Amino acid sequence: MPHSAPPTSYEPLDVAGVCTLLTRHPGLRERLGGASAGWHVREVGDGNLNLVFIVEGPAGALCVKQALPYVRAAGPSWPMTPQRAFYEHAYYQAVAPHGAGLVPAIYHYDPQRYCIVMEFLSPHIILRRGLIAGHRYPQMASHLGEYVARASFFTSDLAEPFERKMQRMALFAGNEALVRISVDLIFTDPYCDSPRNRHTSPQLDLLATELRADAALKVAAARFGQKFLADAQALLHGDLHSGSVMVTDTDSRVIDPEFAFYGPIGFDLGAFMGNLLLSWYSQPGHATRADDRSAYRDWILQQARTFWESFHHRFLALWSEHGDGDAFARRMFSGAHDPAALREARERFMSDLFADMLGFAACKMIRRILGFAHVSDFESIVEPALRARCEAAALSMARRLLTQPQRFRSIDDVINDVRD
Amino acid sequence: MPHSAPPTSYEPLDVAGVCTLLTRHPGLRERLGGASAGWHVREVGDGNLNLVFIVEGPAGALCVKQALPYVRAAGPSWPMTPQRAFYEHAYYQAVAPHGAGLVPAIYHYDPQRYCIVMEFLSPHIILRRGLIAGHRYPQMASHLGEYVARASFFTSDLAEPFERKMQRMALFAGNEALVRISVDLIFTDPYCDSPRNRHTSPQLDLLATELRADAALKVAAARFGQKFLADAQALLHGDLHSGSVMVTDTDSRVIDPEFAFYGPIGFDLGAFMGNLLLSWYSQPGHATRADDRSAYRDWILQQARTFWESFHHRFLALWSEHGDGDAFARRMFSGAHDPAALREARERFMSDLFADMLGFAACKMIRRILGFAHVSDFESIVEPALRARCEAAALSMARRLLTQPQRFRSIDDVINDVRD
Repeated sequence: MPHSAPPTSYEPLDVAGVCTLLTRHPGLRERLGGASAGWHVREVGDGNLNLVFIVEGPAGALCVKQALPYVRAAGPSWPMTPQRAFYEHAYYQAVAPHGAGLVPAIYHYDPQRYCIVMEFLSPHIILRRGLIAGHRYPQMASHLGEYVARASFFTSDLAEPFERKMQRMALFAGNEALVRISVDLIFTDPYCDSPRNRHTSPQLDLLATELRADAALKVAAARFGQKFLADAQALLHGDLHSGSVMVTDTDSRVIDPEFAFYGPIGFDLGAFMGNLLLSWYSQPGHATRADDRSAYRDWILQQARTFWESFHHRFLALWSEHGDGDAFARRMFSGAHDPAALREARERFMSDLFADMLGFAACKMIRRILGFAHVSDFESIVEPALRARCEAAALSMARRLLTQPQRFRSIDDVINDVRD
Repeated sequence: MPHSAPPTSYEPLDVAGVCTLLTRHPGLRERLGGASAGWHVREVGDGNLNLVFIVEGPAGALCVKQALPYVRAAGPSWPMTPQRAFYEHAYYQAVAPHGAGLVPAIYHYDPQRYCIVMEFLSPHIILRRGLIAGHRYPQMASHLGEYVARASFFTSDLAEPFERKMQRMALFAGNEALVRISVDLIFTDPYCDSPRNRHTSPQLDLLATELRADAALKVAAARFGQKFLADAQALLHGDLHSGSVMVTDTDSRVIDPEFAFYGPIGFDLGAFMGNLLLSWYSQPGHATRADDRSAYRDWILQQARTFWESFHHRFLALWSEHGDGDAFARRMFSGAHDPAALREARERFMSDLFADMLGFAACKMIRRILGFAHVSDFESIVEPALRARCEAAALSMARRLLTQPQRFRSIDDVINDVRD
């Protein structure tokens, strides 16, 4: 899988290096206040790929994220081009003007050190942790629906001349090392025997074997894999799970877009929806005597609805108001009967996105249970039998989504099926 | 519409310039034989965009094609980047290894002069002229089906690692000036009032007005326009009409791929199918007392069938034998039940391509009757009333294809509908 060797000039940052970097830039220095001797720097990265430093000074704080030249979880034996920091920054640049404040502010990009200096989000926590803890975030789902609508609409052929989209698509085509990870770990490995796979064993052994022998399911997953590679609808975040969202009760921010590329809008939708469903299925593993999490499960399903509905509502509103692109060019539709036909075509487009969302959600659920990278929603359930029961139920839902798509025409169909 | 100014260093070739260029390259010189004084050079370009020289020497002949920095049909007031020659050459390079001898041999590319030196095809003639003259080419349709299958399959995610496809896609994203022509002239202008449009008037005035008020038809065309821009399935020729094919009784060659870009396979299929149908509808305009062209019309419909069937057959055979890409990755499908499910999935993919072919064929038919660039199949019918009757019948078929796609599930459905 590894594609690019680390650059020979690469130097990982340490606390002193972070201070030197920040001191060189008056704007960053001022944001922190005082001299670097008075700054508090700590490394907090817990992801698979990066160093993350929080720097606090007398006047303020900021965050420094540096891409490592290898997969942090695997060590230098699995090299990974730090050039992904370039794409992460490019994604923020493309989306921030349309993101409605739902991404962190970006202060500086250092191409030599592959690092991004950005807003320190506080008191935000990673949404996945909040979901495991059973916290409710009243605005999160509508924020995320709004976010995906804005980020995808404004980078699609519906919003702008195709030349701009094609140039951006060509730029992000360079992010192939990260796309390779998605292709292998989401759409291929989980469906066959791969040394990178793991699952809760022996409890899920039989299910894993069954799923890998389910030809109809594999064909359905492969169709979504093909769509992932060939359906260049919009600039995607590319890894929009609940670990890529930071929240408070009133604010939500999308982070870590290093997997950005041009693909099907349903992939971002499905990543988020799939992770909400994974959270739902993991809840029995987090039940306590005081809280069996059944009310919280209902809340999660409401969020699934709100996420889709706010996406749907906002995307259609943007299309009506800002549909200035080459697709469905406005000048074609000035006739008396056109508004009704257009409305119907747009609804059909939304139905296609809905179906894509569910298919991709299923692929994301399966890879988190049978593939290489798992999620803490399940991993933090200590008792294997209990964890396996939660995972098995999630797998079963994912299989229904992939093999019986005709059963899921609306978000109600999804919610009712999960609940029953 | 014009996008790029012509480069200031550009020099159009003349006879002397062609000889100088060829003399400089020993390989080309030898192909012609003798000294340039003994070569016969003539300019034969009759397209919209290029200079084309045929050069004959004592030992052999070759063809020199130079991209002009403007649209030849419009003159220097409509600039057009000659950089398209680069993409034409890049397309030949990508496809020739898989093209089964169905493209001309390329001898030389001169990036400064934007010109390609290639095989002189003789005694080939342009297929469109042959169809107007009522000639039959027994192998043409199967050659073309085979060609589209090979060119599209081997540049798709089915055949090769996505990285190679993504790099090629990024390269061809630079061909935006030519893609802009397609977007405007195929998918937008014909459906609204545009000064670039024309049609046989007054005979088709009412039909043109009706079509531009047909909201369902416009929405269907717009969906194909959107697919054209976002469905990056394979490297396309991009302009595969019967004027881009040269034929003899036994040989067929595809030329003029300057519109090359990554798009939906159905677009190339539809371009060729649509032009076969246009030829069918134009035949009454070429009838003589000795030949009412009804037998020839039957032959054309047979060719439509052969084209689709040979494409279908070859594409599936290639997929079985060379399906080494990331889409439907081979290692996912080693189980006992997999072959049957895979067969079904592949047939479904072919059905989708079939539907795309018909939709794009309809768009291509409409643009040739109501848009900017017309075809000599109709243009050479001198009597306007007769021409209009032929065009109206073709338009009517295109409308059925776009607005009643459910009526056309097989090539038989198409043939029967045309015949009735």
